[in-house]
Amino acid sequence: QGTRDHPPAQTALRDRLLAAVVACFKRHGAAAIDTPVLELRETLTGKYGEEAKLIYELQDQGGELLALRYDLTVPFARYLAMNKITNMKRYHVAKVYRRDNPATTRGRYREFYQCDFDIAGQFDPMIPDAECLKIVHEILSDLQLGDFLIKVNDRRILNGVFAVCGIPESKFITTCSAVDKLDKMPWEEVRSEMVGEKGLSPEAADRIGEYVQLHGGLDLIEQLLQDPRLSQNKLAKEGLGDMKLLFEYLTLFGITGKISFDLSLARGLDYYTGVIFEAVLLQQENDHVEEPVSVGSVAGGGRYDGLVGMFDPKGRKVPCVGVSIGIERIFSILEQRVKASGEKVRATETQVLVATPQKHLLAARLKLISELWDAGIKAEMFYKKDPKLLKQLQYCEATGIPLAAIVGEQELTDGVIKLRDVATREEVRM
Amino acid sequence: QGTRDHPPAQTALRDRLLAAVVACFKRHGAAAIDTPVLELRETLTGKYGEEAKLIYELQDQGGELLALRYDLTVPFARYLAMNKITNMKRYHVAKVYRRDNPATTRGRYREFYQCDFDIAGQFDPMIPDAECLKIVHEILSDLQLGDFLIKVNDRRILNGVFAVCGIPESKFITTCSAVDKLDKMPWEEVRSEMVGEKGLSPEAADRIGEYVQLHGGLDLIEQLLQDPRLSQNKLAKEGLGDMKLLFEYLTLFGITGKISFDLSLARGLDYYTGVIFEAVLLQQENDHVEEPVSVGSVAGGGRYDGLVGMFDPKGRKVPCVGVSIGIERIFSILEQRVKASGEKVRATETQVLVATPQKHLLAARLKLISELWDAGIKAEMFYKKDPKLLKQLQYCEATGIPLAAIVGEQELTDGVIKLRDVATREEVRM
Repeated sequence: QGTRDHPPAQTALRDRLLAAVVACFKRHGAAAIDTPVLELRETLTGKYGEEAKLIYELQDQGGELLALRYDLTVPFARYLAMNKITNMKRYHVAKVYRRDNPATTRGRYREFYQCDFDIAGQFDPMIPDAECLKIVHEILSDLQLGDFLIKVNDRRILNGVFAVCGIPESKFITTCSAVDKLDKMPWEEVRSEMVGEKGLSPEAADRIGEYVQLHGGLDLIEQLLQDPRLSQNKLAKEGLGDMKLLFEYLTLFGITGKISFDLSLARGLDYYTGVIFEAVLLQQENDHVEEPVSVGSVAGGGRYDGLVGMFDPKGRKVPCVGVSIGIERIFSILEQRVKASGEKVRATETQVLVATPQKHLLAARLKLISELWDAGIKAEMFYKKDPKLLKQLQYCEATGIPLAAIVGEQELTDGVIKLRDVATREEVRM
Repeated sequence: QGTRDHPPAQTALRDRLLAAVVACFKRHGAAAIDTPVLELRETLTGKYGEEAKLIYELQDQGGELLALRYDLTVPFARYLAMNKITNMKRYHVAKVYRRDNPATTRGRYREFYQCDFDIAGQFDPMIPDAECLKIVHEILSDLQLGDFLIKVNDRRILNGVFAVCGIPESKFITTCSAVDKLDKMPWEEVRSEMVGEKGLSPEAADRIGEYVQLHGGLDLIEQLLQDPRLSQNKLAKEGLGDMKLLFEYLTLFGITGKISFDLSLARGLDYYTGVIFEAVLLQQENDHVEEPVSVGSVAGGGRYDGLVGMFDPKGRKVPCVGVSIGIERIFSILEQRVKASGEKVRATETQVLVATPQKHLLAARLKLISELWDAGIKAEMFYKKDPKLLKQLQYCEATGIPLAAIVGEQELTDGVIKLRDVATREEVRM
């Protein structure tokens, strides 16, 4: 349940998608690492908050207690700490496992690919953070998924907002998770959840509402830096200062047009400590709609400066920032698009079918195809002694093989082959 | 235990190796499929004989009882039966899981890659089987691993031998597993295991010994086809007839020089029903040694005509033949070779480092690198505001980046950059 087999056409399309993402990661100088699907259970414990119940555990068959990895970020942090690495730019494309309620039509599975790019190390502020946003911008542009928006916020700004609105620190995380729902429900509902379930005072909730419904660019950052309450808060001030720097770098990259500083962005995971971001695709339903409609998140990430330290015996910190591309959702979109366009994705790359028009020519086919393979040409033949020529040509049409190399008795005598262009039916002897 | 992290240089080398193997599979017209790491426990039950105890099981957390896949062959057979596919050429490169005693120095792990190519379908005899051997030959040649030998046998010939030597059918499998040890121990020891542990009569063991120590080519096949005892056995006759056909096809492929019909080859798994084969690397220790020494199996496979039927509710069979490349052992060999040669495997593909020689030029670097990325050029820069030029150039040398694009104050004024060849130290303004 919640897993699936990928048949050839799907696998070919997914490989194409992954190749585009990996090409971008390599363009930014990242190295690949590979870590096991199995992790010690204790490695995953206490890293995912409430989501921990979704971790797959292995049966105790003697030896270590194991679990399947839940994401690629925690294994990366474990890898850095174990190997005492304090400086690394890496990508990792691999499957992760979550015992979630699958919603396969919306591209949510229990086994799914993640494509992660992370920069670890102590650097000058916001330079690696800006590169992560540039990467999201490049990938979504390269894949031609249509219009998109990258929302950016900072956990320090959010916590600052909560503090100046009179929320006790013990309620920051739960307030954060309420704010996180603003992309799915209107403010009124989030507010009543805050006041009801979360036990915030109506006044505090209203004060929060004034902030978290704001979004904009440099102007909004400047405005909040002047805000009489926020500017008094150390964390918020730091976050806003860095946000301003980030926008300067994004301006140099020329990508601010698709970036929105959005105070409603909170993100689920506990381990973020600074900048957070999330990319959504926008769908212009029709010309009457004024605001573009979001069709869901396709990339996200942020800064997590404390995670590596959790794995170091001495608690030594390695600051990290990273991005995860939501490949499964993008794949669903591309697949629907391919289906709608009627485009046929070839599952193989075969260039030529070696065919014979008469009986008793298997030896000739075997000799020729062997020569082609040895010359690096992608070639197939029928596994029958005496196949019919028509069937061989129909197979080319059905599977998209562009050429047929035909050896008949005459060709064998003349020491040539007949090369046929399957689409045009043109033939040349060579 | 028995798993490992792959650091960047290892991952880069392994990706190179996997790319060579996949290129060969694609050259032969195979399509890729992907199946989940998780399988239902019942899917794996009863497929691996004694090895079943090595299967990793997941904890019962509610819902289905799951296990980690043990190989890629059983999931492939399950995939064919579930989707009622009777005809397919597919490859699959993925990790499999075995709770084995790890022997990491010899490349044996609990999590490891398999690279499988299989042909499913009802075809004329030995044509797909011959292609599998051609693939092993191509891959081992492409990888330049040194001299190798592909041993070939047929389960039907082995069973025929056992029958004419007076072994009861109930002891075929256990006798087979004794024969399988002939590559690791001398005949005398195998014989005493047969007579002792397995309870065969000394006469029967001696008769088996006469056969299973034979190896050769077409001549040996002809000789056995004339053998007064074997030629009376229906299974053996069928197997020998097909072996002769196989050698004819391999002759057309021009690869019989590295193929040996070897009656001692038995292979461990239960599900083989016809041709079996295994490739070993040979090491010419020095000129005094007459027989080349085997350094272990690097590929293996065979025909399994009954496996798909085990997953079909009506037991409909789909004949299959396939090959699995022992990528981990090959990887160990390549890694040792790289280490010995002192070759440095680059972990990244970065073409150019964007560098600045003075302070206050971060904006210039960010603008230039953004242009390079957008033009598809693999570029890196330091995440510092004011890095020293020397450090930037040393980084190029350490990581193998061939070019540095330097923007100083003068270059900025003139609207040019200075492109430096890191190895030769030549510089051009452009």
